[in-house]
Amino acid sequence: MFLVADNLQITNPVFQKAVSERDPVPIQDCVKRCVAAGAEAIDVNAGPLTKEPEERMAFLVETVQAVTDLPLYLDTTNAAALRMGLSVCRNRSVINGVSLEPKKLEEMLPLVSEFNVDIIGYLLYPTGQVPKTAEERLAVATELFAEIERAGISRERIIVDPVVPPLMWEDGVEQAMAFLETIRTLPDLLGFPVRTIAGLSNLTTGAGPKEKKLLVERTYLPMLASCGLSEVLMNAFHDETVRVARTCKILLNSAIFAWEAIP
Amino acid sequence: MFLVADNLQITNPVFQKAVSERDPVPIQDCVKRCVAAGAEAIDVNAGPLTKEPEERMAFLVETVQAVTDLPLYLDTTNAAALRMGLSVCRNRSVINGVSLEPKKLEEMLPLVSEFNVDIIGYLLYPTGQVPKTAEERLAVATELFAEIERAGISRERIIVDPVVPPLMWEDGVEQAMAFLETIRTLPDLLGFPVRTIAGLSNLTTGAGPKEKKLLVERTYLPMLASCGLSEVLMNAFHDETVRVARTCKILLNSAIFAWEAIP
Repeated sequence: MFLVADNLQITNPVFQKAVSERDPVPIQDCVKRCVAAGAEAIDVNAGPLTKEPEERMAFLVETVQAVTDLPLYLDTTNAAALRMGLSVCRNRSVINGVSLEPKKLEEMLPLVSEFNVDIIGYLLYPTGQVPKTAEERLAVATELFAEIERAGISRERIIVDPVVPPLMWEDGVEQAMAFLETIRTLPDLLGFPVRTIAGLSNLTTGAGPKEKKLLVERTYLPMLASCGLSEVLMNAFHDETVRVARTCKILLNSAIFAWEAIP
Repeated sequence: MFLVADNLQITNPVFQKAVSERDPVPIQDCVKRCVAAGAEAIDVNAGPLTKEPEERMAFLVETVQAVTDLPLYLDTTNAAALRMGLSVCRNRSVINGVSLEPKKLEEMLPLVSEFNVDIIGYLLYPTGQVPKTAEERLAVATELFAEIERAGISRERIIVDPVVPPLMWEDGVEQAMAFLETIRTLPDLLGFPVRTIAGLSNLTTGAGPKEKKLLVERTYLPMLASCGLSEVLMNAFHDETVRVARTCKILLNSAIFAWEAIP
């Protein structure tokens, strides 16, 4: 299970200010801390980038890759900004991401072939709504892979995100279990080792005590891991959760156990 | 997931002394703490009971049930002591346990019908050896259920324990994953909702730093839970692990989520 840090979010006023003033320091500090904490990729969440989209995305990517060689997940709904980000990115890059929403398919898929990169595929209906049951998620996955194929893109390019539901939703707990079943079933359904990703913090979206949120996330993460999740998008500064994530990796991937490997 | 406390172990010198001096206090203190911590059953691990087996088992059961109504898992290899324990136990009791070892089958199975109780069935070869792969464990389970049926016992009486392997074994990590697969596969294989149990502390048997052992146990537990584990035998004094266990229950069983339910 590959650990993608979600710490760099432009909605954070500190980073917003840094980007508008072209100040690399707060951004690079954050990235360095993520790397030190054990992140294996950095999600560069630039948001919709309504102002100076290309300039700001270029600045973000240049600023981040100046301090790390880790893969960058370019996370924006702005296609022009995304193209610019991919153009200037020298690290391995991943597009975050596409779904069955027509505008997304149209704008994002051509970039996959053009820049020869992987892309996250969200299991959402064309309307942007989240499917409820595992069956609904799997049906959407089949549709999404059909679109990918129609676009001439290799199915191995896709990292499927079945969209972690907030537990606070009326059927949030049920959907969280449906998410697990989706992760577990996808490779059998599609007949190849489908890669999957989950945004862990989605689970505890909304009001709630921080310490309990962390407990719930730490408990859900090994469930995800044991269902075969390939990548987790998470806060790299949550030390205890990172320890659990690294322990999951050891339990799932190690040939021989050694206490020295446990964080 | 039902939480069975494994804290009352006669190998602990404190309890050994208490039993030989017929002093209920240390035993009852332990049981009360287990109950307060959230235990839903108490494993009364009396060991082989070479000295005064029946008297000591009777004392143990009487002492424990004087302070709790929780189910008692009577855990001894001594059949005479077990019979005595079952005779005096007014709480719901469970025999812990049987396996394909001929002596165990012969001595333990008749007590199930006689006392109308459930029994833990360990997935061990008739030699007492632990099967390695999930396939081997499932084959042993099929054999065990055949023996149960031959003895005229309802298959619903059995709580299957596929034997958690110590990670320190050469193939311990692989076997820990085989354990998960066994838990997940048993209901499909046998065609009914097979109940299962796992002894969590087995995972970290042997030398190793305490804090890392707890981290590994806390990480493995949600994996077990999401595979459908019915009961976990664990140390009820490991607060953080109990919190994770209770959070697993909420994620797996709740209709509606509420932060108030999270410990």
